[in-house]
Amino acid sequence: MKVKASPAKTVNIGLIGLGVVGSGVVKVLKKNARAIERRTGIRLVLKKIAVQSLAKKRLVRVPRRLLTTRPGDILGDPSIDIVVELIGGLRPAKEIIRKAFENGKQVVTANKALLAEQGEEIFGAAARCRKKLGFEASVCGGIPIVKALKEGLASNQISHFLGIVNGTCNTILTAMSQRGVGFDAALKEAQVKGYAEKNPHLDVDGIDSAHKLAILARLGFRSRIAFRDIHVEGIRPLSIVDIEYAKELGYAVKLLAIGKNTERGMELRVHPTMLPFDHPLSGVKGVYNAVFVHADQAGDLLFYGKGAGMLPTASAVMSDILDIAKRISGQVDLKSSAPIRLTDKKVLAMEEIASKYYLRFQVEDKPGVLGKIARTLGKNHISILSVHQKESHDPRSVPVIILTYEAKEKNIRKALSVINRDRVVREKTVMVRVEA
Amino acid sequence: MKVKASPAKTVNIGLIGLGVVGSGVVKVLKKNARAIERRTGIRLVLKKIAVQSLAKKRLVRVPRRLLTTRPGDILGDPSIDIVVELIGGLRPAKEIIRKAFENGKQVVTANKALLAEQGEEIFGAAARCRKKLGFEASVCGGIPIVKALKEGLASNQISHFLGIVNGTCNTILTAMSQRGVGFDAALKEAQVKGYAEKNPHLDVDGIDSAHKLAILARLGFRSRIAFRDIHVEGIRPLSIVDIEYAKELGYAVKLLAIGKNTERGMELRVHPTMLPFDHPLSGVKGVYNAVFVHADQAGDLLFYGKGAGMLPTASAVMSDILDIAKRISGQVDLKSSAPIRLTDKKVLAMEEIASKYYLRFQVEDKPGVLGKIARTLGKNHISILSVHQKESHDPRSVPVIILTYEAKEKNIRKALSVINRDRVVREKTVMVRVEA
Repeated sequence: MKVKASPAKTVNIGLIGLGVVGSGVVKVLKKNARAIERRTGIRLVLKKIAVQSLAKKRLVRVPRRLLTTRPGDILGDPSIDIVVELIGGLRPAKEIIRKAFENGKQVVTANKALLAEQGEEIFGAAARCRKKLGFEASVCGGIPIVKALKEGLASNQISHFLGIVNGTCNTILTAMSQRGVGFDAALKEAQVKGYAEKNPHLDVDGIDSAHKLAILARLGFRSRIAFRDIHVEGIRPLSIVDIEYAKELGYAVKLLAIGKNTERGMELRVHPTMLPFDHPLSGVKGVYNAVFVHADQAGDLLFYGKGAGMLPTASAVMSDILDIAKRISGQVDLKSSAPIRLTDKKVLAMEEIASKYYLRFQVEDKPGVLGKIARTLGKNHISILSVHQKESHDPRSVPVIILTYEAKEKNIRKALSVINRDRVVREKTVMVRVEA
Repeated sequence: MKVKASPAKTVNIGLIGLGVVGSGVVKVLKKNARAIERRTGIRLVLKKIAVQSLAKKRLVRVPRRLLTTRPGDILGDPSIDIVVELIGGLRPAKEIIRKAFENGKQVVTANKALLAEQGEEIFGAAARCRKKLGFEASVCGGIPIVKALKEGLASNQISHFLGIVNGTCNTILTAMSQRGVGFDAALKEAQVKGYAEKNPHLDVDGIDSAHKLAILARLGFRSRIAFRDIHVEGIRPLSIVDIEYAKELGYAVKLLAIGKNTERGMELRVHPTMLPFDHPLSGVKGVYNAVFVHADQAGDLLFYGKGAGMLPTASAVMSDILDIAKRISGQVDLKSSAPIRLTDKKVLAMEEIASKYYLRFQVEDKPGVLGKIARTLGKNHISILSVHQKESHDPRSVPVIILTYEAKEKNIRKALSVINRDRVVREKTVMVRVEA
């Protein structure tokens, strides 16, 4: 005699946006919905998909009857339980999500720009309407880092995290470091291979990393984050020369999203950073992402995986869908959205942070120049860790590299402004921050 | 005017066992219960602690009135919501957990031996009583890998995982590799430093790793696992010679817990394994743990952190306590335990697996020996990737190292039994499996 399984509970999903990630979600549902139903007793049904144009060619085959060009057909459909917003950008995504909550729907989104720049409005709407907002897919695609910070490390105080959170930049930096190609060539390569957009601004100028930093810091430090408070530098100014010198000194150059929760306030910054080769992040290559977290109880942790792409991001969306589906299918009842209570922590101005620094001076090769630089650094309370004078075939411009002990950014800036005005200095001094 | 916060909901906890992990939980509660209440609106109250002896010296200060020597005082206290079992071992832990479920309590445990060896009874009792069982702390301490497999990667099919899941073994192997000390000396060192127990059997012979493998495989492959089906080899037989040769060839030697879900069946095995230096697990040193997971959608992932210790393990216990507390405090209602539905997948016998192999033959230094070995390997369908003959000062015993392409374990065993019987072979041939 066979034991009859209890009937599956149906959860209806409306998808808004059928680009790369949306197509991934459709693929995963097609492939795994059966297995998910067998395992969990939940039948996930894709009820409707809102797209911009019915005519567009798709990455995945979907029955025409599922498509609509009106998001309202999803938002107004009382049978739909979960709205999955995958169109990205601020508008009309914000209105769509707000309307979804108001209409009693749970929401899953991958929209990092919206959450980073206007997150409090969205989280506030969820709390007011007592609905869940899943956003695992907004940071680091397939790596379940949102869940780790929110739940896995729930009792910890996070003191700092360092993240390689943009695959495009990491691909470019990996190519520059491994094959000695310059930024422009490496960018073009990445574009040809589909790892960089035609307009790479958001990626290479650090904006995308800053979006993810805002979301991670909100979760990790449990503070509201004003996006404009984040200091952002991208990778365009990096030259192959400095990447090579860094390598000789035992460092990899990575674009890091850095969050630190200090007693004086939060540090929130995105910039190229040198990491010693024995740091677990220094070996993260190509399109991979990784977040290094220091938690007071759990200690040092690293989460590593694919940060973007159709299926990794779909995996994150599905994780949120399943979490919510379990609740609304009655396995676990959802009483309220139980928002985390946040504080408003102060953000330190960039001038106030302290770091170690890599400095490359291009100077005339004549006696006394190094002494002059060293004196200016000393006067500004900057201690020198090591000096490396490189060979040069041009006596008018010799590279002198100085690694400093921890110093205040304010003092570094002051010293460099003095040094850069000196006649013997031939180019603007290059400065890269160093984390250990 | 101040806005009055809604009153906190109280969740009462009973702790059974006040060893290292139990003391960690008490510490975290002391330090962070206030912050947790502020953030989540949940007041976690440690109601009672059952210990073996009231006289014993403790790692943490607790009011005498909280202590009892009778677990029944906790199991029978109707005000206690969550029972945290931290005594370990099979008995009396199993009875305690079962009784807790029957008395309507939720349970959190760090007991890997019990879950690995008699897990189905425990999971079955939870399901029957419709209670939650949290066991994040049973695998890899501070790394939220249970949550990642259960929820973060919920829609993925896991094809395989490789884990460094025992900090004692990894500390010993790291010392052997970095400082050339032998197993016995490295073990003694680890014991002095508190990284190995006086009786190191469970750790160095791979049993502890196998316990964790059983739990990970159950979650990852969604199959019941019979503990006796796991093939277990420890690190005692490893000699410093082979670790050195491996290094020269570009490999690190690690004790891995390996789970593979193939079409022919599951591979479940714990044994020393060579990993190329560019594999993300090869750089995991000392007491750190890491699990490398391949998921069909999310791709390659790595979870890295402290696998043991007072606070990292307490962090995992707290994560489970908070998950359950959120549900029972009414923020989310718990209707049923919604157990994962499992299958019973076949486990492949060790003879049936395929792998690459490192083989070290100690042979007489005379013509024709290598040819003879190569012929025997060839006859057994084993292809040679590379041969390395090492210098030796003893012509009666020269090491010859052969790396093979993927071959069947059955064939390797057959070939070695032939070769080991040959007069020119002076010691039993060393075999280490290689993962790429």
